[in-house]
Amino acid sequence: ALRKIIKDWHPSELAELFEDIPLDDRAIVFRVLPRDLASNTFEYLDIKIQKDLMKGLGQERVADILNEMWADDRTALFEELPGPVVKQLLELLSPEERRVASTLLGYPENTVGRLMLPNYISVKEYWTVERVLDHIRRYGHLTESLGILYVIDGTGRLIDEIRINDILLAPLDTKVNELMDGNFVYLHANDDKEAAIEVFKQYDRVSLPVVNSDNILIGIVTVDDMLDIVEEEDTEDIQKFGGLEALEAPYLDTPLWEMIKKRAGWLVILFVGEMLTATAMSYFEHEIEKAVVLALFVPLIISSGGNSGSQAATLIIRSLALGEVTLSQWWKVMRKEIISGILLGSILGVIGFIRIGVAELIIPGLYGDHFLLIGLVVGLSLIGVVLWGSLSGSMLPFMLRRLGFDPATSSAPFVATLVDVTGLVIYFTVASAILKGILL
Amino acid sequence: ALRKIIKDWHPSELAELFEDIPLDDRAIVFRVLPRDLASNTFEYLDIKIQKDLMKGLGQERVADILNEMWADDRTALFEELPGPVVKQLLELLSPEERRVASTLLGYPENTVGRLMLPNYISVKEYWTVERVLDHIRRYGHLTESLGILYVIDGTGRLIDEIRINDILLAPLDTKVNELMDGNFVYLHANDDKEAAIEVFKQYDRVSLPVVNSDNILIGIVTVDDMLDIVEEEDTEDIQKFGGLEALEAPYLDTPLWEMIKKRAGWLVILFVGEMLTATAMSYFEHEIEKAVVLALFVPLIISSGGNSGSQAATLIIRSLALGEVTLSQWWKVMRKEIISGILLGSILGVIGFIRIGVAELIIPGLYGDHFLLIGLVVGLSLIGVVLWGSLSGSMLPFMLRRLGFDPATSSAPFVATLVDVTGLVIYFTVASAILKGILL
Ligand SMILES: [Mg+2]
Ligand SMILES: [Mg+2]
Ligand SMILES: [Mg+2]
Ligand SMILES: [Mg+2]
Ligand SMILES: [Mg+2]
Ligand SMILES: [Mg+2]
Ligand SMILES: [Mg+2]
Ligand SMILES: [Mg+2]
Ligand SMILES: [Mg+2]
Ligand SMILES: [Mg+2]
Ligand SMILES: [Mg+2]
Ligand SMILES: [Mg+2]
Ligand SMILES: [Mg+2]
Repeated sequence: ALRKIIKDWHPSELAELFEDIPLDDRAIVFRVLPRDLASNTFEYLDIKIQKDLMKGLGQERVADILNEMWADDRTALFEELPGPVVKQLLELLSPEERRVASTLLGYPENTVGRLMLPNYISVKEYWTVERVLDHIRRYGHLTESLGILYVIDGTGRLIDEIRINDILLAPLDTKVNELMDGNFVYLHANDDKEAAIEVFKQYDRVSLPVVNSDNILIGIVTVDDMLDIVEEEDTEDIQKFGGLEALEAPYLDTPLWEMIKKRAGWLVILFVGEMLTATAMSYFEHEIEKAVVLALFVPLIISSGGNSGSQAATLIIRSLALGEVTLSQWWKVMRKEIISGILLGSILGVIGFIRIGVAELIIPGLYGDHFLLIGLVVGLSLIGVVLWGSLSGSMLPFMLRRLGFDPATSSAPFVATLVDVTGLVIYFTVASAILKGILL
Repeated sequence: ALRKIIKDWHPSELAELFEDIPLDDRAIVFRVLPRDLASNTFEYLDIKIQKDLMKGLGQERVADILNEMWADDRTALFEELPGPVVKQLLELLSPEERRVASTLLGYPENTVGRLMLPNYISVKEYWTVERVLDHIRRYGHLTESLGILYVIDGTGRLIDEIRINDILLAPLDTKVNELMDGNFVYLHANDDKEAAIEVFKQYDRVSLPVVNSDNILIGIVTVDDMLDIVEEEDTEDIQKFGGLEALEAPYLDTPLWEMIKKRAGWLVILFVGEMLTATAMSYFEHEIEKAVVLALFVPLIISSGGNSGSQAATLIIRSLALGEVTLSQWWKVMRKEIISGILLGSILGVIGFIRIGVAELIIPGLYGDHFLLIGLVVGLSLIGVVLWGSLSGSMLPFMLRRLGFDPATSSAPFVATLVDVTGLVIYFTVASAILKGILL
């Protein structure tokens, strides 16, 4: 779907070609590139490739690149490197860039500060549009985004934002304060990354200003980087929901050993939880001995609870993540899930009942004389189990959020495990009630 | 995390307040707003609220709003309305806007054309920067984004893109062609929406040009809208993976009946598939009769397969969606999953074996004389089942993609069902082999 026109070698094109060069040759190719082109190409490379490449380049070239990179991309690269390496690399920076890099790395992980670009265009309210344009012509090369200019007062406090559109459309002698409306949105450097996404989504800005606790403007965050963050966050949630700890790198780049660690933890926890099914089953061992036919439907019944639980959990986890449902609305959800659970359970219950009847008709004696009663046990259990699955699948994310955990922790396998154990209890209890004195 | 400064009423603030006003009063409040402010506020409202609101407004007001809206937002609103209503609304537009709106709606759903803004700033290569700035001052109000200007030739063909930064930094007498590098990225109007996301992600643009089959520039797409699209696409994938058809509206806004429909379909399909477990179990009914103890571990064993399958499917579905793994790399994945499956299965197998031994030590006679052999059956079955779960969970998404389906269709419940059936066969086969002549 993507078409490009290549006339000269362009950094983004070079970066793409680069990924096809064997690992060992990359540094060699890179060293023959003109200095400027090399630095620009470097920025377009995946962080993983950047890391590898740096090992093969001389100190001077590395210093060059790091001093030239946009501050936010440099922070992202440093985040992936071990502490001692970062310390060495900081030494290669110019005093000014070193100060910037250390400040940015000083913000906690996953905060807006880590995404920040320290350079932006700020203007004063008494400037004319002409002066603003002169100012941009002088300092514009220092910032990645000129889409929005920020108005600050004498002390550096942010007092408004003005879109470049408004500047470009205004007569040259217009004063900045004639374009101001006192309305602007901003982030704090210590805000969570995810907060930034929300604000960008709602306000459709190309950049957002970042202020410190005194409301002094200290940097900007740009929208293009948000696409990567949304992708990262969604991947994290998806992997959690699938029942594993989120990987830190793409699947094929994750070392086998690390992947095993991320998967084994939850797999073992779920396995230990699921051991309760063996306990529950042995509690009903005598019933099974008397009516082995009951055992036949165990997987069918408990899996239906797991499936409906997975559906409910998916819906609520995503709604909570997107802010479409809030904690306080749990009872609205519960009401909806009770009705859904009963209806969906009844659908499966009827199908289950029919299935047993039909099978008995085809193979007479398959389920014995009391096949109708067994059909009834299966049908009623399905209603109970699907209702329970929908309820626990939908309420668990709320509980986790309430307790300060990530709702996505209530993964499909987690909900299935919970429902397997209770599903067995529901099934054998219904069976005991209906078949007592007949089969049991 | 969001802080805003309100001086005057601003459209975005008004829109937020609006959502708290009872449904019936919204139109009343809206009608007293000044014309201009009303139109601007309308654009910030959720589409659902826009739909409701329009019903309560006079034709003249609706005409006003629709003529004022950005074309992409108007298309999005029209997409949510029934055909006959759209037809009526198109009549309210000015001839010019009607032409634009019909053209945009003419593109297939989910294509780039539906996201397009038909107005942009295009420049000629022989213009000076000064002329470009004059041109912007004259026509800039017609476009939503001035971040990138597009260079076209005499026939309207796109020949380059120039960032506004480069224009603003250049001396006024610079010619446009001095700023050109012949390097640009573009989309086709018929490209899939998801292609647009990929290009934005890779090239960090604030807008992308859209061309027709003759390479004539026909519109632009802006990055701020991509955040919403990514969110939509990820929600769709997440819901599919959870085992239901994707909802078209947020959970609480989806009518109960529609939600039941979206869930019942898959629930029934999975239920029918899972019926095979009852068939498989009845095939082994005699074994269960002879050794009821075997039935006790059925849920434990099959669920472990489902869990590892869910993990593997999650990883591969997401990797395929992000393009981190391609179809041709299936064998790399398979190799990794075979090793992972054996290792993870062994971990669970050992724990399972120990669990049975310890339980027998605490309650002697619980599993009978042959508890060690039973432990062995459970342990070995777990290795087989987890390996099978990892393999089928990881390969199914590839197969679905290969067959032209969405890999996310291989939902956690789907994989679990598949593994439940085969898991039973593995378990009872291992049991027969080891216990033949002893318990069976
Ligand atoms: Mg403002
Ligand atoms: Mg938005
Ligand atoms: Mg950036
Ligand atoms: Mg970037
Ligand atoms: Mg998260
Ligand atoms: Mg996070
Ligand atoms: Mg299960
Ligand atoms: Mg260009
Ligand atoms: Mg990017
Ligand atoms: Mg838009
Ligand atoms: Mg918009
Ligand atoms: Mg999709
Ligand atoms: Mg789609």
